[in-house]
Order: sequence, then C-alpha cells, then structure tokens
Amino acid sequence: MKIAIYGYGNLGRGVELSVAQNKDAELFGIFTRRDPKKVRSCGGVDIYPAEEVLKYKDKIDVLIICGGSAADLPEMTPRLARDFNVIDSFDDHQRISRHFADVNRSSLESMHTALISAGWDPGMFSLARFYSSVILPVGNEYTFWGRGVSQGHSDAVRQIDGVIDARQYTVPVKEVFDKVKAGNNSDLPKEKMHIRECYVVADALADKEKITSQIKNMPDYFLGYDTKVEFINEDELVRDHHAMPHGGSVIRTGHTGLNEENKHTVEYSLRLDSNPEFTGNVLISFARAVYKMHLRKEYGCKTVLDVTPADLSALDRQQIIKNFL
Amino acid sequence: MKIAIYGYGNLGRGVELSVAQNKDAELFGIFTRRDPKKVRSCGGVDIYPAEEVLKYKDKIDVLIICGGSAADLPEMTPRLARDFNVIDSFDDHQRISRHFADVNRSSLESMHTALISAGWDPGMFSLARFYSSVILPVGNEYTFWGRGVSQGHSDAVRQIDGVIDARQYTVPVKEVFDKVKAGNNSDLPKEKMHIRECYVVADALADKEKITSQIKNMPDYFLGYDTKVEFINEDELVRDHHAMPHGGSVIRTGHTGLNEENKHTVEYSLRLDSNPEFTGNVLISFARAVYKMHLRKEYGCKTVLDVTPADLSALDRQQIIKNFL
Repeated sequence: MKIAIYGYGNLGRGVELSVAQNKDAELFGIFTRRDPKKVRSCGGVDIYPAEEVLKYKDKIDVLIICGGSAADLPEMTPRLARDFNVIDSFDDHQRISRHFADVNRSSLESMHTALISAGWDPGMFSLARFYSSVILPVGNEYTFWGRGVSQGHSDAVRQIDGVIDARQYTVPVKEVFDKVKAGNNSDLPKEKMHIRECYVVADALADKEKITSQIKNMPDYFLGYDTKVEFINEDELVRDHHAMPHGGSVIRTGHTGLNEENKHTVEYSLRLDSNPEFTGNVLISFARAVYKMHLRKEYGCKTVLDVTPADLSALDRQQIIKNFL
Repeated sequence: MKIAIYGYGNLGRGVELSVAQNKDAELFGIFTRRDPKKVRSCGGVDIYPAEEVLKYKDKIDVLIICGGSAADLPEMTPRLARDFNVIDSFDDHQRISRHFADVNRSSLESMHTALISAGWDPGMFSLARFYSSVILPVGNEYTFWGRGVSQGHSDAVRQIDGVIDARQYTVPVKEVFDKVKAGNNSDLPKEKMHIRECYVVADALADKEKITSQIKNMPDYFLGYDTKVEFINEDELVRDHHAMPHGGSVIRTGHTGLNEENKHTVEYSLRLDSNPEFTGNVLISFARAVYKMHLRKEYGCKTVLDVTPADLSALDRQQIIKNFL
C-alpha cells in the first residue's frame, strides 16, 4: 500500500519512521503547508506543498493526516476524504461524534474509506475500554494517564503572559492507582486521580507568583487538580524535558456469579518512550485496514471499533490462526 | 438472541450466569449428555437431553458448546455447526488450525456462522498478542499464566496411581515477570518463566515419593519446570482449593525510532476469581457477534480476530462512538 503523510510535525515524523517497520507499506511522500524547501524528512523522502496534494491522487492509497485536533483536523479530514482514503488521530473526545459525521458524509459520497481517532487515546485505550466493558458488563472502569507529557496542557501554559516555554506532566496518584489495580472501587473524579506537574521557563521580568496562580486556576485544564509549578531555565528544559513519553492504564473491575461474588480485573497498560512514534505505528496499522476495507468497497467513516483485528495485519489468515490463537 | 448451552459443567454454569448480565440474551435451555432429571441448573432453566437438540433447531439462535477440548469439541463443534450457529472455547493451541478447518467446512456448507476458541487464552490473550504485535512489529512478546488453577495439569496429576484428587497452580516466576514488565528482554523458555505447585490428596497406602517423582518427570506437563508437590488431605483440598482463579499477562516490548532508540511496553493483564465464569462472559459477547454476522449472511468459521469490536456489543453505533472513543 502506498502511503502519504499530510502535515509534518512530531506525529508526521512518527508515521514516517513507522513505515520503515512495515514492509508492505511504501511512503510516496510528505505534504507540508510550510515551504517544502525548508522541510527535511528524516528518511529523505520527497516533500510536496500541501496545496498540490490532489495532483497525486492516483499515487496514494491512504493519506495519513497528521494535523492538530483543535484547528486542523475538523477541516482537513472531511475535505481530504472527498479525494482520498484518509486516517487521522483526532483526539478531542467531546467532538468525536461531530467529526465522525462530517468525515462519514464526505467519504460516503466520494466512495472512499476513512478512519478517525486512531492513536492510543482515543485508539488503543478505546479498544481496551470497549472490550472489557462488553466482557464484564457489571463493573467499573478507570483510565489513568501518565506519567507523561500532555501536549495540550503544555500548550495551555505557554499561552500565559510571561511564559517562554513549558512542559506539563500528567501523573496518576499512586494510592488511587494501587487501590483500583487491587480490584477496589474508587468514586474519585479524574481530577483526584491525577497530579499535574508543570515545568515553566518564564521571562526574567515575569511575575512568577502570578503565573503560578494563573496556571493553577485555569478552568478545564488545571482547576480542581493538585498542580505543582516549578520554574526552570531553558537549558534545563532542553536537557531534562526533551522527550515525549506517555502512557497510562485502562482498568476494569467486574463481577460475576450468582450473587456477584467473583471479582475480575482487566488491565491494559502502555508505557511509551515516544508518544508520537507509538501513535505513528497505530496509524500505519489502521491505515492497512482502511486500504483493505476500501478494496472490499466498504466506504464511509470507520473507527477502531469497526475494524476486525485481522485487517490490521499483513499476514494471511492461515498464518494468523497458526501464530496468534 | 436466543442462546442454548450444550454441555453443563463448570463452563456451562459460567455461561448461564453470564446470560443474566446481558439483557439482550435469553437462555432457551441447557442440553446435557447426563440424565436431565439429575441435572439442576443454577438459574432454573429447562434441561434437555443432548440427543434431542435437533428438535429445537428453530428456537436457538446460537448454541454455546461447553465441552472439553481433548475429546468433546473436535467432534461436537463440526457436527453441531451443520444445524446451528455455534461457538466454543476450544483451547488446544496445537490443534486449532485443524479444528478451524473442520468447523469451517460444515458451517460453510450449511450456511451457518461459527466461532471457535473464545475464552481468555485463546481468546482475550490472542487479541492482546495480536494487537500489540501489529502495533509494535519490532519487539518481543511474553505470556505469563497464573497464579491460577490449570485444569489440564490438575487432571494429569489425577491420572497417577494412588492419587485421589489434585489441584495444580501455575505461578509466574516473579523475577522474570518484573524484568519483562520493566521493558527488558528475557530469552527464557516458558518452563523457566513459571513454577508449578501441586496439592495432592493421595491414598493412605500410596508411595508419596513415587507419586512426587512421577509428577515431576511427566513430559509436556511438568518435566523442565520447577515443580513443588505438597500432600494434603481431602478436607484441606475442599477448604483451601475449591475456587478456580486464574489470570496472567501478555506483555510486548517494542522499539521505534531512527535507531530503535525508543522503547514501548504494552501489557494486558487479567486477574480472575473464576476462570469458567469469565470465560462464560467472553462466550456470550462473541455469541452476540456470531448472531449479528449470521444475520448479515457472513457464514463459515470465525475467530476472535475476525470480529469487529462493535459486533460484540448490544449498543448501537452512535452510542458506541459517543461512549467509548
């Protein structure tokens, strides 16, 4: 299958690296909104201007859209689904139903196949939540994120006056995590299940107390959380916080039995050194399924919950049954 | 969907209890090879003789076959797939390809839908292994079983002369488990990843040293393992070993990056108080998918890797997208 990448930031690079691990995938090129002459791909593949993507319609089986969920994807994915099979990692949980409807409409009309929200959350965590909730209908479910860098929260801190750069780590509260993992219920909201650690590079003249207060009281992002703010210099930020680790756990505790006397715990945990590279690998696997579904004329927008596991693999059915059951 | 249970041991009871947790499922009845008058269902449902199952063909949407993998299922599932949509939890990894071929042939000919090997291993662990191997193609995979009761190993011990009853626990070696979980590779074979603990009730006149030696040297089952044998009396067995807990972990460690410098760990872990009740819940979820696939005329034998997650759920697509992505 011939892949192209649309948007070349951290995630685009993650996808490019992933193609090299998947022998059935071939990277046609990268499309960027920046000046192609100023963009260098880590694998040396051709760079094209984003506005020329339609010219290469026949050379691309699946277009992997690596834009941001806030401003880019709501516009890009439905538009590009008119001419390509597409996949994205749209991650704004609140707006997924709307995004799905938009992408579904244009991909159905143009007889293409699309898939949205393929990453780790949404994505692999959605699968973990879904399988365990179906298998254990009587139960409770918990998602812990971290320890890891939240791009959205880091961005939010950077918007504050006087902040030059920032990194925000989401950290599960150990006591709550251990309790849930041991199969005990917790009624705490997610604000009490996580701590937020901020490492902030501030302007020399900035009022650090004011910045701290602005962070801690930011609604939706920090208000209600136990938030720690530490000011560091730029060298420290580069030295200690250049990586993009993330991860977390989806845990479901359920009961069965005549009197619900038997307890079961299902845990799905990820520990990722590089969030964008892992997400790139998820995108390539689901791009393969998009490609297969399109060959079978299964048009419209799909989610990770609409894909058979077998469609994610380059192996044939006999090999899959032999090696994985 | 109307379910019937064929075979009523521990697993059959697990399925019966599971039906009560799934509002869209209705239990038509239980078929047994024993005298129906001597079988009492825990939920009070009707019991029929196994040989009359064909009479009730039109009243059953999916027949859940709860026989043993050694002698029952290789014969039962292909035979019953000629007249019913069927599902089983066939768990002999070495013979799955053969079983698949047999069931596929009869279900395709009769235009029914079948699904084999739906439990936790094979089943949920197959899914965990498959997803993580596709998402992290460069990596290593480990399966740890236990701590839990292995029915097959317990049976094997019971076959020894002088043994009245026995319970065998499979236990992961903690040091190996912790090492792998921390993302480090291990080249150890599964015999060195697990300990086997046997609790044996022996005849008063039996030679305990001989029994111990026969257990420890049993090929395929115990030879090569660190096996502990403890003799207990019948009261202790009933008091301390009546439950059927099991569980384990599938762990994959993978690498990404230009020089494979980034490490990722995916862990799927189960801790189950009741192996047969959890397996019963898995069977009901996949029975729902069998029912939906049959309505769509998707005939033949399927595996857990051929089922879209969405087909496992009674929820409609809008609800699924809203609640789980």
